Amino acid sequence: MKSMKIRILFFDGFEALDVFGPVEVFSKAEEIQMSYCSFEGGPVRSAQGFVVITEKLNEVSSSDVLFIPGGMGTRTLVEDTAFIAKLRTFIEYSSLCLSVCTGSALLAKAGVLAGLKATTNKRAYAWATAQDDKVLWQKKARFVTDGKFYTSSGVSAGTDMALAFVADQFGAAKAREIANRIEYIWSSEPDLDPFAVE
Amino acid sequence: MKSMKIRILFFDGFEALDVFGPVEVFSKAEEIQMSYCSFEGGPVRSAQGFVVITEKLNEVSSSDVLFIPGGMGTRTLVEDTAFIAKLRTFIEYSSLCLSVCTGSALLAKAGVLAGLKATTNKRAYAWATAQDDKVLWQKKARFVTDGKFYTSSGVSAGTDMALAFVADQFGAAKAREIANRIEYIWSSEPDLDPFAVE
Repeated sequence: MKSMKIRILFFDGFEALDVFGPVEVFSKAEEIQMSYCSFEGGPVRSAQGFVVITEKLNEVSSSDVLFIPGGMGTRTLVEDTAFIAKLRTFIEYSSLCLSVCTGSALLAKAGVLAGLKATTNKRAYAWATAQDDKVLWQKKARFVTDGKFYTSSGVSAGTDMALAFVADQFGAAKAREIANRIEYIWSSEPDLDPFAVE
Repeated sequence: MKSMKIRILFFDGFEALDVFGPVEVFSKAEEIQMSYCSFEGGPVRSAQGFVVITEKLNEVSSSDVLFIPGGMGTRTLVEDTAFIAKLRTFIEYSSLCLSVCTGSALLAKAGVLAGLKATTNKRAYAWATAQDDKVLWQKKARFVTDGKFYTSSGVSAGTDMALAFVADQFGAAKAREIANRIEYIWSSEPDLDPFAVE
């Protein structure tokens, strides 16, 4: 059985559903192991005020997948050059990288999306896309895959992207079975985006 | 402005999305304040392996709302008479009570749903409904409201129920605005249940 380790990267001000929709999906794939990390380790406070305990992210293997949520915390993190440099290093070492919502603003700031298609939260579109104008930003997309990156639109779109990721990695039947198991009405079409802003 | 305190009750083995879909919705209603609690307080481990820090639930005011997720943890909790007795007391003191997934098995075991309509996870239907045969269990329902209780079907259905709760309490326009803000494709019909098992 193909196995995979996904490192879920937390930071203060992360958005709850950005993380825990995808975490719910990944947890139902027996091929996937998750670890809950941050660059410092220890308690991390969500934008919703609850606290999650994380382990310190020290290293990744080249077969690992990195998962980056969005949230209000990204607004200050794009200005944190040490954080962005560390993030770039970990992304470069990872085999695949997924972001939800304004998580792609962090990726853009790190310069790793230049020349690639990507998307982001539609309510924060101007701010997020301004982080790097060399990204081929997709205005109307539930989620986008390009190179080793999966980026999704805001919050709930991350769950649809996570299922698409499982489908790509482990087959569509597995993804459908997970959606059924968590009673999730899966919007599987990447281009179906009812929240796109003209 | 009408304000409301929702106490989110955690226990070991809670299911991630059962909690954090609704928490995401509630967090966008400025009328709602949440607290993250457990009966013991301190660290609580999800069925997905991550740890959330909780405060000890000591008391509720009669205007408070109690929210109870499901998850594998409910399988042992239905046999924990001290937990069930405490839960019954807190439910009785709360103005409204919401449960997601197998959370309703705990409510049923506590005897508070007898004579009322309710629903639960469709994959755990036989087990959950066996906790109390005096409940008017609804086989085909995304979520159900009766008396002071809102109960939902499995995992993802909790998010649809949370939006319906916000619509009931603060108006449909508010719920729709939240769904749009979190880019959530809201399944607002309580009887539309694609995961019902015949």
